[in-house]
Amino acid sequence: MPYSYDYPRPALTVDCVIFGLDEDGLKVLLIKRGGEPFRGCWAIPGGFVDMDESLEQAARRELEEETGLKSVYLEQLYTFGDPGRDPRGRVVTVAYWALTRVLAEPVRAASDADSAAWFAVDDPPKLAFDHARVLEVAHERLRSKVRYQPVGFELLPRDFTLSQLQQLYEILLDRPIDKRNFRKRVMDLDVLVDTGEVQQDVAHRAAKLYRFDRRRYEQLLRSGVNFEI
Amino acid sequence: MPYSYDYPRPALTVDCVIFGLDEDGLKVLLIKRGGEPFRGCWAIPGGFVDMDESLEQAARRELEEETGLKSVYLEQLYTFGDPGRDPRGRVVTVAYWALTRVLAEPVRAASDADSAAWFAVDDPPKLAFDHARVLEVAHERLRSKVRYQPVGFELLPRDFTLSQLQQLYEILLDRPIDKRNFRKRVMDLDVLVDTGEVQQDVAHRAAKLYRFDRRRYEQLLRSGVNFEI
Repeated sequence: MPYSYDYPRPALTVDCVIFGLDEDGLKVLLIKRGGEPFRGCWAIPGGFVDMDESLEQAARRELEEETGLKSVYLEQLYTFGDPGRDPRGRVVTVAYWALTRVLAEPVRAASDADSAAWFAVDDPPKLAFDHARVLEVAHERLRSKVRYQPVGFELLPRDFTLSQLQQLYEILLDRPIDKRNFRKRVMDLDVLVDTGEVQQDVAHRAAKLYRFDRRRYEQLLRSGVNFEI
Repeated sequence: MPYSYDYPRPALTVDCVIFGLDEDGLKVLLIKRGGEPFRGCWAIPGGFVDMDESLEQAARRELEEETGLKSVYLEQLYTFGDPGRDPRGRVVTVAYWALTRVLAEPVRAASDADSAAWFAVDDPPKLAFDHARVLEVAHERLRSKVRYQPVGFELLPRDFTLSQLQQLYEILLDRPIDKRNFRKRVMDLDVLVDTGEVQQDVAHRAAKLYRFDRRRYEQLLRSGVNFEI
């Protein structure tokens, strides 16, 4: 064995919790494991960190290898390192999370994953390792973050209606929201641009389409504005 | 060398950014390194993770060994793992942070630290490794968190005056706060208990002493109350 050290070292992995949204609600991207341990079991995509890449590069690489997904904005979530969380020995994993638009990104299995698929966050299959806990922590982070920052826009199409935005927040916060207060609050935030367009091909009265103004948002964020919905 | 693996592994450390407060402002606890690399240089306390302890246990152990500090509430901050951040080779560190009352906790150097001392957060000495960046990320986290959660109480004596509380927030947020609005907002939060006591041995008119009601706070937190100051 070529790699020897004076002291024992844990193995280091990265995992990526990817949330998406479709008409049925909030989804998470999982892969079916092609190798042991937990062969055939669903898991959060991830794998071992190479010595010459940063943690985020490793997360990005593993995500693309296992699911085909790329160009998502990964944010570090938490590092899970309890002894015993992996039957292979001490393995510490740095978890990342991201939001993406489900339908815009096809999912393919590759490398050591047998397949990849989206599952309802509220009803996932049995997961390998401590991945149920990792998913729970990521879901908590999403719920907590959405209260203070307009992260939800990452989950919508570029142009969206205020009803779509409200549905999104109702799903993320898991509670009904008063329509009038919501619209007033969203407009007060001053981060939406009226595109001047309306919905196409809808049976009901076509609603106005808006777009998220990221530059304006980042300006406001730096000036300490409260984005609580 | 007794520890051999099929693939190379990074070494894993933990680091603890401990903030405290005294009459001069916000402080951070640093140790002077007793060994190479960066011997004699100031650094954030920390060290290597043992194979049979959790990451948090490792952080707690290293903090006590190097500074004598214990019983602080450590929260995971971020994991730093860029190749090249440590001259010894690939070393990934899981950073934790905590708030504590400076004057209540004596600091002693122990184990591989030569000495330990508090420094002004805004004017730290040159730090080993990427610890200047670790401190910056911890300071950002503190500033961002204090806006949404009453974390500041950890930095005050058990019984405190509203002026002390306001000074604390002014230091943490780094801006002056309007006294009347602040008092109204704090009272509206409904997490302070009037102790019925007043300050002793003060030259000016003695102010009322309050205490933070952690149970009440946790109840309100679960019910989704906004704690923004």
